[in-house]
Amino acid sequence: MEQSWKNNLRKIKPYVPGEQSKDKNIIKLNANENPYPPSPKAVEVIRAFDTDNLRFYPKADAMPLKEAIADFYGVKASNVFVGNGSDDVLAVAFQALFNSDLPIVYPDLTYSFYPVWCDLFNIPYKTYPVGEDFRINVEDYAEKNGGVVIPNPNAPTSLGEGPDFVKRLMDLNPDSVVIIDEAYNDFGGVTSAPLIGTYENLLVTGTFSKSRSLAGLRIGFAIGSETLIGVLEAVKNSYNSYTVDSLSVEAGRASILDREYFTECCNKIINTRQRVTQEMRALGFTVLDSQANFIFATKDDMRVKDMFEYLKTRKVYIRYFNLPRIDNYVRITIGTDEEMDAFLRELKEYMEV
Amino acid sequence: MEQSWKNNLRKIKPYVPGEQSKDKNIIKLNANENPYPPSPKAVEVIRAFDTDNLRFYPKADAMPLKEAIADFYGVKASNVFVGNGSDDVLAVAFQALFNSDLPIVYPDLTYSFYPVWCDLFNIPYKTYPVGEDFRINVEDYAEKNGGVVIPNPNAPTSLGEGPDFVKRLMDLNPDSVVIIDEAYNDFGGVTSAPLIGTYENLLVTGTFSKSRSLAGLRIGFAIGSETLIGVLEAVKNSYNSYTVDSLSVEAGRASILDREYFTECCNKIINTRQRVTQEMRALGFTVLDSQANFIFATKDDMRVKDMFEYLKTRKVYIRYFNLPRIDNYVRITIGTDEEMDAFLRELKEYMEV
Repeated sequence: MEQSWKNNLRKIKPYVPGEQSKDKNIIKLNANENPYPPSPKAVEVIRAFDTDNLRFYPKADAMPLKEAIADFYGVKASNVFVGNGSDDVLAVAFQALFNSDLPIVYPDLTYSFYPVWCDLFNIPYKTYPVGEDFRINVEDYAEKNGGVVIPNPNAPTSLGEGPDFVKRLMDLNPDSVVIIDEAYNDFGGVTSAPLIGTYENLLVTGTFSKSRSLAGLRIGFAIGSETLIGVLEAVKNSYNSYTVDSLSVEAGRASILDREYFTECCNKIINTRQRVTQEMRALGFTVLDSQANFIFATKDDMRVKDMFEYLKTRKVYIRYFNLPRIDNYVRITIGTDEEMDAFLRELKEYMEV
Repeated sequence: MEQSWKNNLRKIKPYVPGEQSKDKNIIKLNANENPYPPSPKAVEVIRAFDTDNLRFYPKADAMPLKEAIADFYGVKASNVFVGNGSDDVLAVAFQALFNSDLPIVYPDLTYSFYPVWCDLFNIPYKTYPVGEDFRINVEDYAEKNGGVVIPNPNAPTSLGEGPDFVKRLMDLNPDSVVIIDEAYNDFGGVTSAPLIGTYENLLVTGTFSKSRSLAGLRIGFAIGSETLIGVLEAVKNSYNSYTVDSLSVEAGRASILDREYFTECCNKIINTRQRVTQEMRALGFTVLDSQANFIFATKDDMRVKDMFEYLKTRKVYIRYFNLPRIDNYVRITIGTDEEMDAFLRELKEYMEV
C-alpha cells in the first residue's frame, strides 16, 4: 500500500540544469560564462577577508552591496534589491509581484526558467510569438495581462531593444508590473534602470554572473521603485533573511565599484563577438546582431545539430536547443580570442573549408 | 486613483530580522552565533581558492559538499540535500513536502520562522502547547495532520529530546512527513540522522551556522530518504539551480571533514554552558537543562526584561522575547569563557551581589 504521506509531496517535473563537464581541456562556450577572471579588486577582498567574521550572520540588508549597485546605476540604495543570483531575484519577483488572475505574458522564445517559476508559484501565463526575424513585437503586449517579463537582450536570440521599445511597453502597460530582465545587457545593450523614476511599476533585474565574471558567487539584483522593492524585501524576508553571503556582499561590492576593469572586459567580449560574427557570416552562416555575450546562428544548408555534436567530440562545447523554430540554430558563448579561434578552426575543419 | 498593478502585489507582513549592531565592542550573545572562528581547514580553502573559477557557475549538485556531509552522518550522498542556510532548506522542505489540506503541527514555543513559511506557502498549521516544564509531549502528535516539525533541541527553550522520543513520534505518524530540525543538535544532542534508513518519511535538517561557525557562508542541509531528497531537489531546481556558491561548497566541505576542530569547539561551548548554568543557578536563576549553544533562564523575583535592557546599556546583548509564557525569560548565547565572565560580572553588578 502506498503510504499516504507520499500524496502530500509536491508533484513537479524536475528542471535539469545544463551539463557540466569536469574536463579542464574543453572549450566551454555553452553556459554564457565570462572568459575573463573577476575584477582583481574583488579577488583582493576575498584574499583579505577576515574569515573570523564568517561565524556571524551576514548583514540581512546587504547594504554595502546595495550601495555600490545604487551608485553604478545612479539610484538610491532603497531602489535596490539583491539576491542569490538573478534566478533567486526573478523567482522572488514572480512570487511577490504576479498575483493576478490574468496571465503574465512574455515572448515564446526566451529564458526557459519563466514557465518553471509560473508552474512553481501557480501563476497563469501566456506567450506571444516573436517575429520571423526573432524580434519582439511590442504592440502584442497591449492586451490586458497580469504582468510582463521581457529579457533585454533576449535569450537565446541575443537581440536587444532600445529605450523606445521599453517606453512604449510601459505606456501600453500602466496596470501591470513590467520586469525587464537585463542579465545580458552589459554587452552593448541600453539599461532601462534610469526609467524607474518615471515608471513606478517597472522592475529591472541584473546579475553578476555574466559581465562581472562572478557566476560562482551567486549575486543578482533588481532596481525599481521603493514600492516594488519593499514587496520583494517582504517576501524574501519571509523566506530566508540572508540570501547573499558575507563574502559575496563584499566581493560583489568591490567588483561593481571597479568600473575600469568591467568596461575593459565587456569591450573585449564585444570586439571578439563582432569579429566572430563576421567570420561566421563569411562562412555562410546567418548570425543575428547580438547585444549579448553569445551569438545565435544558423545555416540553411547545414544540420547544425550535427555540427554541434561534432564540435563536442573536438572538446568545443556550444549549446543546441531541440525546440520548435530554433532547432536549426546554435548558441555560442563568446570566449577569449584564442578560444574563438579554436572554435572557428574546428568549425572550418567540419565544413572542410 | 490607485494603480491597478498594486492589487497584484503580494500582501505579506514583512518579517523583521534580529537587530545587528556595528559596534565591535559589544558582547554579542543574542544571535546564537559561535564565538570561535571557523575551522582553519575551511579558511585555508578560502585563501587558496582559485578565484579565476568564480567566472563559472557552481556545480548545481554541490556534490563535494554533499559527499562530505554524507560521510559525517554515515549516509549516501543521494540522502543529502544542501541549501543556502537551513532557512532555505526548511523553506524548500515546507513547499515540497507539506501539501495536505490538514494542518501541519509543531510546538507553540519554537522557531519563529515556521508560521512565516506557512503563511508564505499557504500551509495550514496548528500548534500544540509545550508543557509547564517547556517539554514537548510526544503523545500530542498522535492526531492526524499534514506534517510534523520538531526542533531538537527546541528553541528558545534549549531542551533536547532523545531517540525514544523521535521513534515514538515516527510510530505515531506513519502517514506524515516528519521534519526534525537539528540546527542546535551538535551541542550535546543526539542526531536522528541514522533513523532515515528506518523511516522513509523522516527528514533531518542541519546548519553550518552554529556548530561550524560559518553563518556568514550560508550552508544548510537535510538528510532523508531518496524519495524525500528527490522532491526537495525538484522544487529547488525549479526555483534556483545554484543556491550554494562555489566558495561555500568547498569551504563547507573542508569544515565538515575537520572533525577534530569541530569536536573541540563544541566541547568548549558545552563546558562553558555547564559552568554558566551553575553560576546562574547559584545566583537564584532557573536555567533549563540546555542541549544547545544557548541557555534559557528566568528568575521569579526579577523582571528579566529590565535586566536585558540594563545589559544592553553595558554593551552585553542577549535576547528577550515579548511573547506569552516566556515574557520573563531571556535567551543567552554561549560565548567564550571571557565573554561569559563579562556577562556574569555585569549581571552581578545589576543584581548588586
